[in-house]
Amino acid sequence: MSSGRLINTQSWPIGDVGDARRARPTSWRTTTRAVNGNAVLAPERFPGSGSLLERSSYCPRRNVESFSIRSYEVGENRKISIATLANLLQEVACNHARNNGFSVDGFATTLSMRKYGLIWVITRIHIEVEEYPKWGDNIEIDSWFQFQGKNGTRRDWRVTNTRTGKVIARATSTFALMNEQTRRLARINDDVRNEFCLYVLHPPSWVFVDDAVTKKPISKLSEYQHVKENLKPSLADLDMNQHVNNATYMNWILEAIHTKNELNSMTLEFRCECKRENTINACSSLEIDDKNDESSSTFTHLLYLVGSDKEVSRSRTTWRKPSF
Amino acid sequence: MSSGRLINTQSWPIGDVGDARRARPTSWRTTTRAVNGNAVLAPERFPGSGSLLERSSYCPRRNVESFSIRSYEVGENRKISIATLANLLQEVACNHARNNGFSVDGFATTLSMRKYGLIWVITRIHIEVEEYPKWGDNIEIDSWFQFQGKNGTRRDWRVTNTRTGKVIARATSTFALMNEQTRRLARINDDVRNEFCLYVLHPPSWVFVDDAVTKKPISKLSEYQHVKENLKPSLADLDMNQHVNNATYMNWILEAIHTKNELNSMTLEFRCECKRENTINACSSLEIDDKNDESSSTFTHLLYLVGSDKEVSRSRTTWRKPSF
Repeated sequence: MSSGRLINTQSWPIGDVGDARRARPTSWRTTTRAVNGNAVLAPERFPGSGSLLERSSYCPRRNVESFSIRSYEVGENRKISIATLANLLQEVACNHARNNGFSVDGFATTLSMRKYGLIWVITRIHIEVEEYPKWGDNIEIDSWFQFQGKNGTRRDWRVTNTRTGKVIARATSTFALMNEQTRRLARINDDVRNEFCLYVLHPPSWVFVDDAVTKKPISKLSEYQHVKENLKPSLADLDMNQHVNNATYMNWILEAIHTKNELNSMTLEFRCECKRENTINACSSLEIDDKNDESSSTFTHLLYLVGSDKEVSRSRTTWRKPSF
Repeated sequence: MSSGRLINTQSWPIGDVGDARRARPTSWRTTTRAVNGNAVLAPERFPGSGSLLERSSYCPRRNVESFSIRSYEVGENRKISIATLANLLQEVACNHARNNGFSVDGFATTLSMRKYGLIWVITRIHIEVEEYPKWGDNIEIDSWFQFQGKNGTRRDWRVTNTRTGKVIARATSTFALMNEQTRRLARINDDVRNEFCLYVLHPPSWVFVDDAVTKKPISKLSEYQHVKENLKPSLADLDMNQHVNNATYMNWILEAIHTKNELNSMTLEFRCECKRENTINACSSLEIDDKNDESSSTFTHLLYLVGSDKEVSRSRTTWRKPSF
């Protein structure tokens, strides 16, 4: 991705956490101390953080949380949707950043990022689901982040069914640095890199052994078979930074598709911001260069702003025969 | 409410709970036993139910659950919305019914209800919020149900901020019995009443001491000041019974209102079902017979089906000066 292109400035929102904000030290670095060679934060600094308080051997390099699937989170097929799963992934990521003392203003910045006026922007996310959990199922989500090449970071997630121990979903996303004022992409300088060394997984670990699928380019959809027109964000679709949240993008994509198969994976590229006042068209088409039959299919999708034709997101979904 | 009028058949959805369903005994009555004079269910019957397993002195007459507010549950004002709170109330209600062995087919029926072909339908809900929780806040929701007059039941909820111990929200809802085949309202017969005696709170307790506000009639809105037209349910708005869920009604109501005040309470009357294929208009007006000034206001709302003009819901909201 060339430097300077305006991309989606939305990040995982990091909000006001009440006591945690008030207790946040001016320099979060001063709260770190060494335990068994790992830098950790003093737990008493974050009274609102359950996951931090409950684990005596707090590791800043990953966050593991458990969730019980709620009744209202499941749909007609009695299972959660990929959008609901994306929300849970976001929750684990946000808490990871919050537990590490990153800013709670919506952009999870560190001291050096604020010094240089930099924020993270999510550029891509890829989620694969082998088994969708049902109401009452308990799942565990493990997440960590690390450097990606010279100029980016990535966050990975592994989702396990707690009862069976089976890995039921995996996801990875990439982030780039952006100058908050100029809205141009920026390089990771030494200060930022050194600071993040405390929090990236070492040695690195990738939830997808082969990144060929997660990185596969998504072409722009110029003609489409299905369209859902004039989608408008509701107040409930906005996050704390007044951006339409990523789960809503996923729901819109699924509005413009007709298949009886079960969603296997979704890849989203974020290309521009979407706000309350925008109107969006969601288009989709079967990928013609892919094997598409009754048992599996691949679709390409486009969300664009009505009026300007500006691309909000390109995405790809793969589908399989439904499991019951 | 006169018997026989078609009302909203949606109930708190009760879904497939995996192992719990398979472990459900043919007659759930056989699983009850007496502990300290209270009927309880054998915990080992419900391996999927955390709240049941974790409490040794399980009480079938109320359900108490704790929640940590998640990052994606808060909006622009960094607080949860009343719709999100309604989802959490539903979760506690559904788990209460599930823990007591009621059916998990979407209607929370008991053995005698199934014998007579009866289901519960929600007719009204009233929620008052004193303080909206923020991301990271921990809340506890206590809920119970009881008979309401000769022919109905009600469920009450009390929401407490775990850290401060302050009651931050209260809610109550009423349910009527309906014959699933004829769609007509039915009386609570002795079999059903005797069965429910195991599960209703005794002595009764009401979360609102004075029910005058919660029961205040809502007039039909014939003229309106604000309207949001052509609202369409998305797939994500449907519950496991393919009805639009109650939280979506609340979001629609809030789409058609313009005030800088903070929502104090919402009362909804459910009048007919709303499904995927429906299109809805949401209208609202200031109540003219109420004190309305800068610091407080009351609105009347109407959701109706475009085409048939059939009322989906009448509702009332009260607003106060925002707290920061």
